[in-house]
Amino acid sequence: MKLNCDLGESYGSWTMGMDSSVMPYIDMANIACGFHAGDADVMQRTLALAKQHQVDVGAHPSYPDRQGFGRRTMNCSPEELINLLHYQIAALDGMAQIHGLELSYVKPHGALYNDMMRQPAILQTVFTAIQSYHKPLALMLLATAEQAKHQAEADALGIALLFEAFADRRYTDEGLLMPRNQAGAVLNQTEVLAQVQLLVSDGVVITGSGKRLALKADTLCVHGDNEAAIAEVQHIRQLLQG
Amino acid sequence: MKLNCDLGESYGSWTMGMDSSVMPYIDMANIACGFHAGDADVMQRTLALAKQHQVDVGAHPSYPDRQGFGRRTMNCSPEELINLLHYQIAALDGMAQIHGLELSYVKPHGALYNDMMRQPAILQTVFTAIQSYHKPLALMLLATAEQAKHQAEADALGIALLFEAFADRRYTDEGLLMPRNQAGAVLNQTEVLAQVQLLVSDGVVITGSGKRLALKADTLCVHGDNEAAIAEVQHIRQLLQG
Amino acid sequence: MKLNCDLGESYGSWTMGMDSSVMPYIDMANIACGFHAGDADVMQRTLALAKQHQVDVGAHPSYPDRQGFGRRTMNCSPEELINLLHYQIAALDGMAQIHGLELSYVKPHGALYNDMMRQPAILQTVFTAIQSYHKPLALMLLATAEQAKHQAEADALGIALLFEAFADRRYTDEGLLMPRNQAGAVLNQTEVLAQVQLLVSDGVVITGSGKRLALKADTLCVHGDNEAAIAEVQHIRQLLQG
Amino acid sequence: MKLNCDLGESYGSWTMGMDSSVMPYIDMANIACGFHAGDADVMQRTLALAKQHQVDVGAHPSYPDRQGFGRRTMNCSPEELINLLHYQIAALDGMAQIHGLELSYVKPHGALYNDMMRQPAILQTVFTAIQSYHKPLALMLLATAEQAKHQAEADALGIALLFEAFADRRYTDEGLLMPRNQAGAVLNQTEVLAQVQLLVSDGVVITGSGKRLALKADTLCVHGDNEAAIAEVQHIRQLLQG
Repeated sequence: MKLNCDLGESYGSWTMGMDSSVMPYIDMANIACGFHAGDADVMQRTLALAKQHQVDVGAHPSYPDRQGFGRRTMNCSPEELINLLHYQIAALDGMAQIHGLELSYVKPHGALYNDMMRQPAILQTVFTAIQSYHKPLALMLLATAEQAKHQAEADALGIALLFEAFADRRYTDEGLLMPRNQAGAVLNQTEVLAQVQLLVSDGVVITGSGKRLALKADTLCVHGDNEAAIAEVQHIRQLLQG
Repeated sequence: MKLNCDLGESYGSWTMGMDSSVMPYIDMANIACGFHAGDADVMQRTLALAKQHQVDVGAHPSYPDRQGFGRRTMNCSPEELINLLHYQIAALDGMAQIHGLELSYVKPHGALYNDMMRQPAILQTVFTAIQSYHKPLALMLLATAEQAKHQAEADALGIALLFEAFADRRYTDEGLLMPRNQAGAVLNQTEVLAQVQLLVSDGVVITGSGKRLALKADTLCVHGDNEAAIAEVQHIRQLLQG
Repeated sequence: MKLNCDLGESYGSWTMGMDSSVMPYIDMANIACGFHAGDADVMQRTLALAKQHQVDVGAHPSYPDRQGFGRRTMNCSPEELINLLHYQIAALDGMAQIHGLELSYVKPHGALYNDMMRQPAILQTVFTAIQSYHKPLALMLLATAEQAKHQAEADALGIALLFEAFADRRYTDEGLLMPRNQAGAVLNQTEVLAQVQLLVSDGVVITGSGKRLALKADTLCVHGDNEAAIAEVQHIRQLLQG
Repeated sequence: MKLNCDLGESYGSWTMGMDSSVMPYIDMANIACGFHAGDADVMQRTLALAKQHQVDVGAHPSYPDRQGFGRRTMNCSPEELINLLHYQIAALDGMAQIHGLELSYVKPHGALYNDMMRQPAILQTVFTAIQSYHKPLALMLLATAEQAKHQAEADALGIALLFEAFADRRYTDEGLLMPRNQAGAVLNQTEVLAQVQLLVSDGVVITGSGKRLALKADTLCVHGDNEAAIAEVQHIRQLLQG
C-alpha cells in the first residue's frame, strides 16, 4: 500500500504545506502544475525534493482557477478540458525529465477530481486526455463501489488505474467521501489508524452507516499540511511497515 | 534561407494574426506558450496547423506578462528565468509530441528577446536554460555584428544557434533593429524585397547610416498579422524560390 | 427605448469590438471590468469614449475567467460572488468618476447573466451585492415572462431594474433567448427590425413557436462586433427615431 | 508618530501575515489591491478588520505581478502606470465605502515603491495618478535626505505627503534602506527600539556609517508577519505611549 500526497501547492511568495517534512514518508508525490497552485519555481523545487527522496511523481492538474484553488467547478467543454490537462501534464513532464525523473501518473485536483468521480462524461474526457498523451500515464482516482466498472472502462482503453483510499475521511455507502462539513466526516487519529488497518488486512472500510464496504486500494492519500498531519503520516507509515 | 513567423498569439476569445493564412508559406513556427499569448486551446490548434503544413515548431516563451504581451522588461532572477523557460518549453514540447511533432528550437519573445540581445548575462541565462533542458534545442537569436562571439559562446556549451534577420526592419550599424518609433525603421515593400535579395546574394544589409553590414542569417523573420503582411510573405517566398 | 451595448472587451494587445464605431449610436455602455475582458487601459479608453458621446456607463462584471471570456459557469459561493461584484463595480466606479462620469447600473456578463436569469438564488445574490454597494445602482436584466415577479422582488429591496430585450435573438415561450446553436436563434436583418418595431409598438415579441409574448423592455441590447453589427445598430436607431 | 503596516496580503487559499493580531496595535493599514496580493475576498475581510479596530485605510497598489509579489520591476509606460494605480485604488476605495470607511492615502508596494524613490520620473507619474484621482489622497513615501524636495514638489501639485521611516531597517547616508542582503541591514530588537526612540526624541537615525541623519517621519512602518513581528509592534507601541 503506497502513500500519495498532494504537494507543490505553494505559489510565488505564499507557502502551503510542509513538503520537505512529508516527502521522506511518502511514495508518490502529486505535484500541482500551476493552474490551481504551484508555479515554475515551486515545481522545480518540488521535483528536486522528490528526486532526493526517490518518490514517484505524478501530475496534479486542475481547472484554471488559482484564486479558488481549483475548488470551484467550471463548465469547460471536453476539448478545453483535454487541452488544459495536456498543457499541465506536459509542463510537469518536461520539468521532471530535466531532473531525470519520469512522470508516471495523473491525479486530477479538487473540483475536477470530484466532478470526474460523479459525472461519467468527465471521467471519459479525462480518460481521453490520458490516452491521447504521447506516453503512457496511469490515472489515480477514488476507489468507490464502482471501481470494477471504472477498471473495465480503463482496461478497454489501455489505461492503467491507481485506486486511492483516504486514511482520514469517513466513507458513504457508495464509497464516496462524506462531505467535510458533515459531523464525523474527518476521522480522529485512532480512527485513521483503524481505517488503514482494516483496509490493509480486509480490504474494507466501515461506512458512516456502519456497513462494511469492500475497497481495493493501491494507495492511500495522506496530507502534509501541518505538524499534526506529518505526525499522522508517520504513524500510518509505521503501521504499514509493522 | 528559411522563413520563421511568430504564431499562436491569440488568447481565449481574442484573435491575433492570420495563422492559417501564413502557415503555408513559412518553414518555422515560433509558437507562444501561454505566458504572453496563447493558451492550451490555441497551442493545440497551432500545432495541428503546423503539422498539416509540415512546418518546424519552436517555443516562443516570454516574461510572464499577458496584459503587456511580454513587451515589458521584468527583473527576473536567473533561477526564475530558467524555470519560466523550462515550464513554457516543456508545455509546448509535450503538446507537440501529442501531434507527433518534435520541438526543435526556442526563440524568446518580445522584451525577453531584446534583453537577451542587449545584456550578456541574460543571454547566458537563456543558454543555461536551453543547455539544461532534457533534449537538445537550438536557440534562435538576432544576427548582429556580434554573431561570431555568440556562436563561439554557444559552441562552447554545445548549443546550436539559428541566426535570424528581419526582412522588414532597418538595421543599425551594430546590427540591431532600429526602434520602431524612429523614422524609416519599418521598410516598405520594395525595400523589404531589396533587403532580402541582398541578404541572400551578398550576406549583407545596408544599415540606416548606409553602411554594408555582413550578416549571416539562417532564417528570416516574417509576419502574419494582416492581409498586407501575408502578401509580403508570399513575395519573399517567391523571391527566395526564384 | 434605449440602446445598450457591451463594450471595453479588448484586453492588452488584443482588440475586440468596434467600440468607437458603435458608441455614437448607443445610450448605455456596459463596460467590462477586467475579469472576463478589459483591463485598466481599456477601461480608461472606453470611459473617455463614453464621455465624449455622452453615453451612460454601467458595470459589466463577470465570473473571474478571462481565458473563457466569462462564458463558463463557476460555482462561486454567495460571499465570493458578492465580493467579486463589489471589486469590479468599484474599480469601474472610481475610474468613471475620474472622467466626471457616474456609474448608473450593473449588467452581469455571460455565464453569470445566464445563471442569474435561471437560478433565483444567484439573482438574490446579485440583488444583495447591488443593495450593499455604497451608492444606488440599477440592475439590468432580461425581460422575461417572469419580469413582474422580478420587479416585485427588486421593489421590496429598493433596487431599480432595467429590463432589456434582444433585437437580434429569437425568444422562447418563457421569454428566454433561444440558444445560439439552435436553427433560427439569431434573426436576420429584416426580422431584427420587425422585432424591434413590434416591441416598440405593441410591447410584444413573436416567440419561436409563433406565440405573442408581452415584454416590457426599457432597453434593447445591440452589438458592435463588426461592420454588419454597426450597420444593424444604425438601422435600429433610425427606426426608433422614425 | 503613527504606525502603518502592509496588510491584506493573503491570496485565495494562501495566508500571509497575522492581520488580526497586528491590527489592534496599528493606526494605518496599507491594504493590497489584488495585483501583487489580496483579492476581493481578502480585501473585504481586511476592511472589516480595519473598521473593527478603527484603523485608517490606504491603498497598497503594485505592478501587476502576483507570482513575483510585486517585487520585480516592470517597465510600464506612464499611462499604463497611472491606469494601473487608478484601477487598484478605485477597487479598494469603493469596497472601503461599502464598510463606511474612507480611503485616505496610497502607499505603492514593493518594486514600485523602490522605483518611485529612486527614479524621479516614476515619482512624478505616481503624483499624476494621485492628483488625477477624483478625491484627495495622500501619498505615503520614504523619508529620505531628499524629503524637503519631495515635499516642495508635492506642495506644488496640492498633494499631501506622509513620510514613513522604518523601525527595523538600517539606513544609508542618503536615507535609503540598506538592502536586506547586506550584513546589519535588519535591526535586532534592541536596535529597533533605540532607532524608534531616537526618531521620536531627536528626529534622526544613525546610518550604517554612524552618521546622524535628520528624518522627519509622520509614520513608522511595522510588520505583522509572525509572532516575533507582532511582539516587536507591541514593544514599539508601548515605547510610543510611554
